[in-house]
Amino acid sequence: MRIALDAMGGDCGPELIIEGALSALRGNKDFEIILLGPSDFLSQQLATLGMNDDVARRLHIEHAPETITMHETPVDAVRRKKNSTIMVGFELVKAERADAVVSAGNSGATMASAIKKLGRLKGVSRPGIASLFPTLKNPVMIMDLGANVDCRPQHLLQFAIMASSCISKILKLDRPRVGLLSIGEEAGKGNTLVKEAHELLSASKLNFFGNVEGRDVYQGNVDVIVCDGFVGNVSLKVSEGLAEAAMQMLRSEIEKSLRAKLGYLLIRHAFNNFRKRVDYAEYGGAPLLGINGAGIVSHGKSNSVAIKNAIVIAANMVRNKVNESIIQALEEQTV
Amino acid sequence: MRIALDAMGGDCGPELIIEGALSALRGNKDFEIILLGPSDFLSQQLATLGMNDDVARRLHIEHAPETITMHETPVDAVRRKKNSTIMVGFELVKAERADAVVSAGNSGATMASAIKKLGRLKGVSRPGIASLFPTLKNPVMIMDLGANVDCRPQHLLQFAIMASSCISKILKLDRPRVGLLSIGEEAGKGNTLVKEAHELLSASKLNFFGNVEGRDVYQGNVDVIVCDGFVGNVSLKVSEGLAEAAMQMLRSEIEKSLRAKLGYLLIRHAFNNFRKRVDYAEYGGAPLLGINGAGIVSHGKSNSVAIKNAIVIAANMVRNKVNESIIQALEEQTV
Repeated sequence: MRIALDAMGGDCGPELIIEGALSALRGNKDFEIILLGPSDFLSQQLATLGMNDDVARRLHIEHAPETITMHETPVDAVRRKKNSTIMVGFELVKAERADAVVSAGNSGATMASAIKKLGRLKGVSRPGIASLFPTLKNPVMIMDLGANVDCRPQHLLQFAIMASSCISKILKLDRPRVGLLSIGEEAGKGNTLVKEAHELLSASKLNFFGNVEGRDVYQGNVDVIVCDGFVGNVSLKVSEGLAEAAMQMLRSEIEKSLRAKLGYLLIRHAFNNFRKRVDYAEYGGAPLLGINGAGIVSHGKSNSVAIKNAIVIAANMVRNKVNESIIQALEEQTV
Repeated sequence: MRIALDAMGGDCGPELIIEGALSALRGNKDFEIILLGPSDFLSQQLATLGMNDDVARRLHIEHAPETITMHETPVDAVRRKKNSTIMVGFELVKAERADAVVSAGNSGATMASAIKKLGRLKGVSRPGIASLFPTLKNPVMIMDLGANVDCRPQHLLQFAIMASSCISKILKLDRPRVGLLSIGEEAGKGNTLVKEAHELLSASKLNFFGNVEGRDVYQGNVDVIVCDGFVGNVSLKVSEGLAEAAMQMLRSEIEKSLRAKLGYLLIRHAFNNFRKRVDYAEYGGAPLLGINGAGIVSHGKSNSVAIKNAIVIAANMVRNKVNESIIQALEEQTV
């Protein structure tokens, strides 16, 4: 198995991405990694790093001289930059020289590039972005996180089927419970989209739990939560923003007294464990579901741990044939 | 000025609500409070409490034998329970025997009741729920928080005008900055509703800042954020849920070691200050904007501090003639 890794994407810089790649190779023997980026530059980078023969043998470079930045418009960028890391990556998948692409770069462009090069899976009308989130119990997979801002009820049903197949394979869950994000638990609560999606989900073969509210997201009572990409993206970013603001406020309160500063020294270890428990880096990356291949987008602020975990998720998806499971579930649904 | 207070609404029980009323009366000399609920029951409750003559003179009871529970459907409940605390409260406002209603009960029923008894302000197509939220800088007013789940762009423009008028009056802000909640800062980002609302807001007389993302909500770079009620409600509840889950996870990490428990004792004061800073109770209640009168809904889990602050906000709205300011701003907009 070969995972193509965008060495130039994201805000973290190629050094951390390569560090993540080496760490993934050291921990896993069943795949190889192809670094995507300007080959001279990447060769120079690798020359400065120590690595054992086994890792060196499984690390390759594919020349991709262009990079799509975070602020470029996805469709335009994909059309103009045919030699960008992302486009070259999905070209490798198309040519069967790689099995998956991982990128911490522009997620819209990664999705556009995947659709352009690989197309959609049979039966899928709208591919989307799914991701695992920490909860008080097991992680929950939320879909869509921003690829589809205006959805029809049928799209939400498909997100539910795709995310359900994916989490069932990668976390070995039998019949994952699916929740529909709304503003009240009762079936009649929500906007028009959600009310109609509720009917489709109730009539489906999925293990449909019913509506869940925003406050249930982090409770872990369901395995999958579906919503349109606008609501999903806002929820994700509100959560990130709240966590950041809360840490900042807490820090400023602690810095007001010596007593609290001493207390912080004693409590720091518990704090770090807590942070690790909720850190997106631990959850790796967000699979693009519904494309005819495997693609993972990582957070733009990914560190090497996040990159490593994204690579591991990509390998897990390929190994467990998530796409075959999605195609089958979609077929069963329409029978 | 007289504020009618639903003594039976919410999950906290009448004792805490009455405590909040007494605290509001002690701290403010320019209004009276009318408690809404079964008169015998309320008289008994008051008889057990010590209060000075000044407070006793400004505390009244209005008999309202019925209560609308949290799980009743607003429109049905309002039709069936004509003698409910909420309906009696808005009847008092209609009869000019009270100036505002505060309730920690069913917020949908409070809105339905306000519209039924008082109607909409001139020029308003959809009244909505607004509320102040803590940020790293000044509080931000978000509207709508759940009254309107399917919106047109024109509604979002009106929410912006109403929230802008309200925050400008109650926090004495000159030309509040208005942000539109979306999934990217650029004007072209968002769903169809948001893209169209962006054009209306850009062309308006408001101090329009542009799109803001979920992660900006708690930064405090704008004074008002507008969104449809579905997105607003999900964002609010995701925030509450994340805060609760995070505290629970942090607590369980702290309890794993004696060292961390000791640290917590030292840090507790800073923690409590932080909690107070982000506690919804400090922000009191959420004004219903666009109704021809004043109504405030409080969180169902309100404590006496939240009730007191909701009463103070209600008085502030009446004193500062927020509704007159809204009517004027709507008229200027359409000129």
